[in-house]
Amino acid sequence: MTRTSNPVYVTKDTARKIVDKYDNFLFDCDGVVWLDEDLIPGASSLLEYLTAHRKKHVAFVTNNSSKSRCEYLAKFQRLAIENVTLDMIYPTCYSAALEIRDVLHIPPKSKIWVLGDHGIEQELANLGYVVMGGTDTQLDDEFDAKSALLRVDPDVRAVVVGSTKSLNYMRIAATLQYLLYKNKSIPFIGTNIDKTYPGADGLVLPAGGSVVSFMADTAQRDFISVGKPSRRFLDLILRDRGFDRDRTLMVGDTLYTDVKFANDGDLGGGQGSLLVLSGGTTRDDLEAVVGLERDESLTPSYYTESLGHLMDLLRD
Amino acid sequence: MTRTSNPVYVTKDTARKIVDKYDNFLFDCDGVVWLDEDLIPGASSLLEYLTAHRKKHVAFVTNNSSKSRCEYLAKFQRLAIENVTLDMIYPTCYSAALEIRDVLHIPPKSKIWVLGDHGIEQELANLGYVVMGGTDTQLDDEFDAKSALLRVDPDVRAVVVGSTKSLNYMRIAATLQYLLYKNKSIPFIGTNIDKTYPGADGLVLPAGGSVVSFMADTAQRDFISVGKPSRRFLDLILRDRGFDRDRTLMVGDTLYTDVKFANDGDLGGGQGSLLVLSGGTTRDDLEAVVGLERDESLTPSYYTESLGHLMDLLRD
Repeated sequence: MTRTSNPVYVTKDTARKIVDKYDNFLFDCDGVVWLDEDLIPGASSLLEYLTAHRKKHVAFVTNNSSKSRCEYLAKFQRLAIENVTLDMIYPTCYSAALEIRDVLHIPPKSKIWVLGDHGIEQELANLGYVVMGGTDTQLDDEFDAKSALLRVDPDVRAVVVGSTKSLNYMRIAATLQYLLYKNKSIPFIGTNIDKTYPGADGLVLPAGGSVVSFMADTAQRDFISVGKPSRRFLDLILRDRGFDRDRTLMVGDTLYTDVKFANDGDLGGGQGSLLVLSGGTTRDDLEAVVGLERDESLTPSYYTESLGHLMDLLRD
Repeated sequence: MTRTSNPVYVTKDTARKIVDKYDNFLFDCDGVVWLDEDLIPGASSLLEYLTAHRKKHVAFVTNNSSKSRCEYLAKFQRLAIENVTLDMIYPTCYSAALEIRDVLHIPPKSKIWVLGDHGIEQELANLGYVVMGGTDTQLDDEFDAKSALLRVDPDVRAVVVGSTKSLNYMRIAATLQYLLYKNKSIPFIGTNIDKTYPGADGLVLPAGGSVVSFMADTAQRDFISVGKPSRRFLDLILRDRGFDRDRTLMVGDTLYTDVKFANDGDLGGGQGSLLVLSGGTTRDDLEAVVGLERDESLTPSYYTESLGHLMDLLRD
């Protein structure tokens, strides 16, 4: 991997060079394309410029596992972002389902235990799996140590853990039984490693990665990570889209997921990460990593304010 | 600290020497005196023998924070264990409250945020604090990012996290706001470090320590540990009971809490831990620690099957 130590701030000249240099662009969503339900100004124009005018290929890669690909597609449509199709959208609920089918080779109709939201349930169901746990409202009940829901179903073939607002003691306790069952032999997939995410009004909320860590720590076992920055997730996307690794750029707002994902995955010949400052990373955070920590894997190749700012540079 | 490397299996002769040698006996509760709601056979007789016949002093030290001292007292009475008074009972909900009053010097009537059960609420209330969070049923509601419960009350002076069956996303999210508030400056007390505890029918359930770790990990900050094996907890008890460290023995069923508590705390001149095999530790677990791991702090001075077995040895 050849990569300069310092990130390049994107100027008008750099912006043009970037668009010329890469054929394929991977975009994180929250903090990059939108902030919760609000489109980031200029993001839609940039995406249209890349796809319609410059014939570039794009895909969307998010560590959020709560929404299925269909729900993401609806969101793109709601925000009037055009030319996005289902096969361009990679949330970690989808990569979890693909891991089960294509890597673990677990046959359809098998039972999968879920601690997570609808997105995971829907992607598993789309591939023909039978979902146990998840948003099942029986698990909303007050904890009861005598509940049949705490008895392991020996037919369960894998456990998927991700973000869920339905988190409660009953779900955690039931999931723990599966993670410990038969000397911890049921495969344990974690959708992501993000500990928190920014909510409205300055809230910082627990993210899927905190739930995954919680279960891993309580069960004292490792998990298969199918989210950014996992190389297996990147390889899956490149293979699926037919993207040339050397000619692909990842655009994201988070150093330890998006930038690390690109750098560890050798995108763009080691120059494949563009950080935008419109989400979870401030200029101070960036300087801390580039200055004090000097962690190459967290250092973006380029950085800019936002997709809108990038569009402005390209338009002038 | 002088301590033999190998634990001594208690024989009739050792049993008599132990009772002669120590004036004070600290007992863990679950797995030692009782298993859930069942008295461990012989435990009551041993306690009576030590206190009534041999004039020894005893105290009960549990990492469970769910029950207050009054609730523990009721349990001792329910199980017909005699001569136990409130001042002999040290659950970690009590040590958390004492930490707030005597170490952090937070004045009564201050607000304390709790992620935990009634025990913590009651012990804080007993010392005159105003409890926020905890079992407040408003927090049982479905997560709502707009809820006023997620807005930090700037008058909250400390956060206590412990075991709770009421764990849900709303409580976790609200607690996280307090842990992050003002650059993580509100003191954060964790009642214990136990990740799991054994339930009925082979269940393994998430314990308070898993919740404490979860919050520490998500907030990316350390906590003040007021449970076993923390030295501050032991020192508090010895001071409070007027027990001589050199003449005190800790009896417990867990290596990394009870035995470590005694060994790190230099009880009995470095010979102050007695492991019983009636709870969470098997003979295999013990052998793994003594054999392969060779961790001195986890190696008990003595071990025996149960309090009942010890009583049998003393009786013959």
